[in-house]
Amino acid sequence: MPNLSFGQHSLVSNMLSLAIAAMLGSFVFFTTSRGQLAPKYRPALVMSSIVVAIAGYHYFRIFHSWHDAYVLRDGAYVATGVPFNDAYRYVDWLLTVPLLVAELVAVLALDKATRGALMGRLVLAATAMIALGYPGEVAATTSTRLIWGTLSTIPFAYILYILWTQLAQAAAKNDEHVRVLLRNTQLLLLGTWGFYPIAYLMPVLGIGGADAKVALQVGYSIADIAAKCGYGVMIYQIARAKMAAEGDESGATAHA
Amino acid sequence: MPNLSFGQHSLVSNMLSLAIAAMLGSFVFFTTSRGQLAPKYRPALVMSSIVVAIAGYHYFRIFHSWHDAYVLRDGAYVATGVPFNDAYRYVDWLLTVPLLVAELVAVLALDKATRGALMGRLVLAATAMIALGYPGEVAATTSTRLIWGTLSTIPFAYILYILWTQLAQAAAKNDEHVRVLLRNTQLLLLGTWGFYPIAYLMPVLGIGGADAKVALQVGYSIADIAAKCGYGVMIYQIARAKMAAEGDESGATAHA
Repeated sequence: MPNLSFGQHSLVSNMLSLAIAAMLGSFVFFTTSRGQLAPKYRPALVMSSIVVAIAGYHYFRIFHSWHDAYVLRDGAYVATGVPFNDAYRYVDWLLTVPLLVAELVAVLALDKATRGALMGRLVLAATAMIALGYPGEVAATTSTRLIWGTLSTIPFAYILYILWTQLAQAAAKNDEHVRVLLRNTQLLLLGTWGFYPIAYLMPVLGIGGADAKVALQVGYSIADIAAKCGYGVMIYQIARAKMAAEGDESGATAHA
Repeated sequence: MPNLSFGQHSLVSNMLSLAIAAMLGSFVFFTTSRGQLAPKYRPALVMSSIVVAIAGYHYFRIFHSWHDAYVLRDGAYVATGVPFNDAYRYVDWLLTVPLLVAELVAVLALDKATRGALMGRLVLAATAMIALGYPGEVAATTSTRLIWGTLSTIPFAYILYILWTQLAQAAAKNDEHVRVLLRNTQLLLLGTWGFYPIAYLMPVLGIGGADAKVALQVGYSIADIAAKCGYGVMIYQIARAKMAAEGDESGATAHA
């Protein structure tokens, strides 16, 4: 753990706290807005609620782990010897990433058979992606990190392939507005998920030190807020747009 | 308390944290999905919510007890002298295990008389099973542990007997899909509950030391996640399958 300036330590601390606040705020939005959606779109919103609850918990732990890992001495932050626990992120992803892909399938409200098949494959691939990445994250050598990282990329590519082909096909039946929203959601997913492999490769590329460590934590926080809170809000908007297209704008038939 | 390597201590800590996150996520799922079920199936979901709320609280306590029991010194974890409190698990089981068996009866939505009789006997047996196990858990000698363990096995066997005979009989009236789900739930219950007597026998068989201690905590965490979160999700699926068989797939009539 490299020593950090006061500003560096505070920046990470404040970004982690922002993530906790964003997850909490989104949780309140997703749980209390259930009644605005027709019943068939609610499972997607329920999944959003679960995702941000789990992520909020983990950011709370990460925040405290960050504070345990450093102590302020002579105006700078030095390592206490208690390691900063990055495993919280992996446990978080293991639980939330399968839910995030399932969410996108759920909001399409496809027929039962198509939905089940799509969801099963995506959830399995998402779980494999995270599980295969972790041994590389904790590996002592760069080559081991690269091997696991490469293995993890296979299910990652598979998820993107499914989202871009079969899901797009399923989405094509919707009207213009819904299709634009779905396309934006796919782009958000690609844009945010793109950060994680870059972060994973940083040690391989020899990027380290205090600045890199700070950039990594800030980047993770922003990516997680976008990929969980922002993504959940877009899923909600898709559901509302689909309701409008179906002539059910009120949500008045819907009881929370 | 044996000394632990850094990796051993972290593994247990991360598994306990995973259990907290899983209980929290399940709690959000069970409470926010109430409206997806017809009213007669909701008591089962309410019980699932109670179970994971109580378990999440206890895992939070166990997590902190684990951290209080060890201190990092020269790269290894040594006992602080503060004992790791295993009683949290027994208090948890005392409250949650009767609810777990009641849940399975509740989702069958039997007539009032059959349900009452089955539930009463199962809840009583589950309570006796945990209460009889505890004196053996804290006993100083192996023979005392064995005596209480044997006594605890009587209600354990009785619960399995009831679940395999009378509950199976009651379930036989359902359609094929529901019966398969019920059978899977019984198997999940048997598979996960099977771990606890094995864990109980470990000191009797002379299995101890750091590795055994770590395996025990990891095993408990996995068994609890499967027996509480996974089991609750299966109970939810049974309710949905029964609704489908009854021609009420919408959940639209359902008011949370």
